[in-house]
Amino acid sequence: MDTQDESLGDVDLNEFQKQGHELIDWIADYLGNAERYPVLSRAEPGDIKNQLPASPPEQGESLAEVFHDVESTIVPGLTHWNHPNFLAYFAITGSAPGILGELLSAAFNVNGMLWATSPAATELEETVVDWLRQILGLPEGWFGLIQDTASVATLCALAAARESLDDLDVRERGLSQAPPLTLYTSAQAHSSIDKAGITLGIGHENVRRVPSDDRFRMQPDVLARMIETDRANGKRPFAVVATVGTTSTTSVDPVPEIADVCARHGLWLHVDAAYAGAAAVLPEKRQILDGCDRADSFVANPHKWLFTPIDCSVLYTARPDVLKAAFRLVPEYLRTDQQDDVTNLMDYGVALGRRFRALKLWYVLRAFGVDGIRARIREHIRLAEAWATWVDADPQFERLAPVPFSTVCFRACPNDRSGAELDELNERLLARVNATGEAYLSHTRLDGRYVLRAAIGHLRTTEAHLERIWSVLQDELHDLLVT
Amino acid sequence: MDTQDESLGDVDLNEFQKQGHELIDWIADYLGNAERYPVLSRAEPGDIKNQLPASPPEQGESLAEVFHDVESTIVPGLTHWNHPNFLAYFAITGSAPGILGELLSAAFNVNGMLWATSPAATELEETVVDWLRQILGLPEGWFGLIQDTASVATLCALAAARESLDDLDVRERGLSQAPPLTLYTSAQAHSSIDKAGITLGIGHENVRRVPSDDRFRMQPDVLARMIETDRANGKRPFAVVATVGTTSTTSVDPVPEIADVCARHGLWLHVDAAYAGAAAVLPEKRQILDGCDRADSFVANPHKWLFTPIDCSVLYTARPDVLKAAFRLVPEYLRTDQQDDVTNLMDYGVALGRRFRALKLWYVLRAFGVDGIRARIREHIRLAEAWATWVDADPQFERLAPVPFSTVCFRACPNDRSGAELDELNERLLARVNATGEAYLSHTRLDGRYVLRAAIGHLRTTEAHLERIWSVLQDELHDLLVT
Repeated sequence: MDTQDESLGDVDLNEFQKQGHELIDWIADYLGNAERYPVLSRAEPGDIKNQLPASPPEQGESLAEVFHDVESTIVPGLTHWNHPNFLAYFAITGSAPGILGELLSAAFNVNGMLWATSPAATELEETVVDWLRQILGLPEGWFGLIQDTASVATLCALAAARESLDDLDVRERGLSQAPPLTLYTSAQAHSSIDKAGITLGIGHENVRRVPSDDRFRMQPDVLARMIETDRANGKRPFAVVATVGTTSTTSVDPVPEIADVCARHGLWLHVDAAYAGAAAVLPEKRQILDGCDRADSFVANPHKWLFTPIDCSVLYTARPDVLKAAFRLVPEYLRTDQQDDVTNLMDYGVALGRRFRALKLWYVLRAFGVDGIRARIREHIRLAEAWATWVDADPQFERLAPVPFSTVCFRACPNDRSGAELDELNERLLARVNATGEAYLSHTRLDGRYVLRAAIGHLRTTEAHLERIWSVLQDELHDLLVT
Repeated sequence: MDTQDESLGDVDLNEFQKQGHELIDWIADYLGNAERYPVLSRAEPGDIKNQLPASPPEQGESLAEVFHDVESTIVPGLTHWNHPNFLAYFAITGSAPGILGELLSAAFNVNGMLWATSPAATELEETVVDWLRQILGLPEGWFGLIQDTASVATLCALAAARESLDDLDVRERGLSQAPPLTLYTSAQAHSSIDKAGITLGIGHENVRRVPSDDRFRMQPDVLARMIETDRANGKRPFAVVATVGTTSTTSVDPVPEIADVCARHGLWLHVDAAYAGAAAVLPEKRQILDGCDRADSFVANPHKWLFTPIDCSVLYTARPDVLKAAFRLVPEYLRTDQQDDVTNLMDYGVALGRRFRALKLWYVLRAFGVDGIRARIREHIRLAEAWATWVDADPQFERLAPVPFSTVCFRACPNDRSGAELDELNERLLARVNATGEAYLSHTRLDGRYVLRAAIGHLRTTEAHLERIWSVLQDELHDLLVT
């Protein structure tokens, strides 16, 4: 069929096939043997850029040449998130099934903005987000859709919260005639809440940080008082963001009590369960979502702890009509015959173009099965508990937060150091461990103290890997203390 | 190395490899023979969903089983954007090199939020967006980064525009104390400009649509008058969005004159060149970006007409410090040693998580080379001109807009019909053509008239494909007129 001048078409498909097979083999080897690489890239600023030509080639190059440079130039500049010893931030997995799903999405290259522009993209998305809703035990009837990241999902949720203020008609009139809107989240909440408040024109000073308790949970009574004070001062409280699994310690806000406050004051409740929501697949952890059935919106990220390649964040809402009212715009060129009889996912967010992200989540859920996912999440929690035990048993270390999921906050605390000295020691310890290339951990601060974090979330991380990392930590601490 | 209980790890890598090879072969066949499928899916609402189980499987399934269902259930529900006869919206290509780049991104699964979290992700992105800047002839020194879509890129650009109003300090204080901000774009501009205005809290009524002239271009003198009137009425004009290649007709706004107005009134100029920007790779089309060197921000989408799988939209700005001031937030857990010495791409947008999108764009630019890209874009323009010639030569059809790029606006106009009758005829004609499965075109309205659009942008579309589609159109029109 294809009689096209080859200088005008795609690259030769035989070349694609040959390179595709090589990539698949290379990736299989990479996934099984990522340990040959240092986890944290050893590149210095500029190292990669300096190896790349300043300008693109005039003539096309072979796919083999490009791949050669992937190996020689790009791979040494990677920090290996798909390495079993990656324990920084929230450890994630681009699993084999997810990778194949993503490959197919790129080949189909559909834009699922409208139902008609690929019915399967919309209907598979509706199906898999409902599957996920079921296994997390979220309420029947909730509407869900996939966004790229929790930051964007939260922005959309808070835009819906703002839209729910019927008397203000913010969509049409903007905020300049409105009283100052205020939203509330805990001192431990993610920076994306601030970013959403800034982007939506609420203003950073109107994103109120509610103090957390000694277990890093939002204090609902303080929340209630802050709302009342703001209201008394002419502000217009409109939303609360509770977190199930905060970024630093994975603490869980008391959602039932927060939901009570929201109900009493008529505020939109958004729940950020980006990381920890996945744990609700376990019957023994289901209670972490207590109260979330009363939320107006809720976000969980399969790209965090559900083995789905980045990006895949699922936003649920009990009030899809409000979300749609916040975003729907249908110019003539996007009108279709089925416009009002189907779900057009472009109506529920900022981005018009929509990649076919449901495929990879479908691959993951089917390849592992619900039992398989439970076993793996349970194992990650077991591994984190083991790590916590090692910390607790070692007088040179201390744990700084409870471990409800797969993340441990701890630090070295040799008994001759304190205060700023301890902070500096731990900062140096982290740098040394990461410099070994054997593991990559990150840090946070809790009550002013510099704290190390070990986050478990990679499918190839085993207890043996963690034992090895633990011994590297001990060795590096020893070396630090004797020098 | 891997001694893990296999029920706790990833799927078996031999299975991955076997299925990966099968997928690559299947994709090669798909890309070369997409013509075996109807372009527009024949699925009815619910068809796909009804074939999918209501709940996820308890036990994991093999990758082969999942792929079996891709073929039997998903593919019939696809509208084939990677089909050479897809002429709807803006036709795009998920090219072979781009697909391989995306495959690698999924396997690496890095989050390029910080330089340190994968130096190569940041530095390759800096490099390829600079390559693209060079081949489009944009000013040296412009900062660029990849966003998912032009909708989001435009939102970020307008957030920067809002941030540039130093006296208001919108980031900190929000908009409630501010005068009503107004922004301006042409009557032909994309709905994403409205959506950005709504999301940012500007308000839909403050997104001013400037009338376009008889060639669908913004009228700068009317723009100037609207700004003056708004200012006189206590509004605060802050930004203008000019379009190079509007969605309906691909018209080009007079950017030099618009830039003059912006300079005179101190407004931020954003240019939406999402589709047509790519044409600036051609020396003979370079003038389409005249005046764009004076823009504050500019967006072009490699996932539209640069053969890169969706999503990949590049946002440039001459004022990166303002963009950063609008979005930068660095909580402790995201602090790194190199924080201030490197580019951390999370600082320039809403999303914190960043997929490694630069890889696919790099694959595309290298595999085709600049000359190869020029030849392909030039060919698409030649094909559109050929189509325009056929329209112009046929008394049963008329053309409704100039054809500066690869998109033709036209309609059937048999001489016994007019007004609403003609609209209805064309609507029915479009439905019939799309129902044949041989081609997929979309529509718009111009001056109230229903208009068909043929957009060329797929690498496998040849003149022979278009001749066939043209004869289908003529046949369907004939059948419509005799029945």
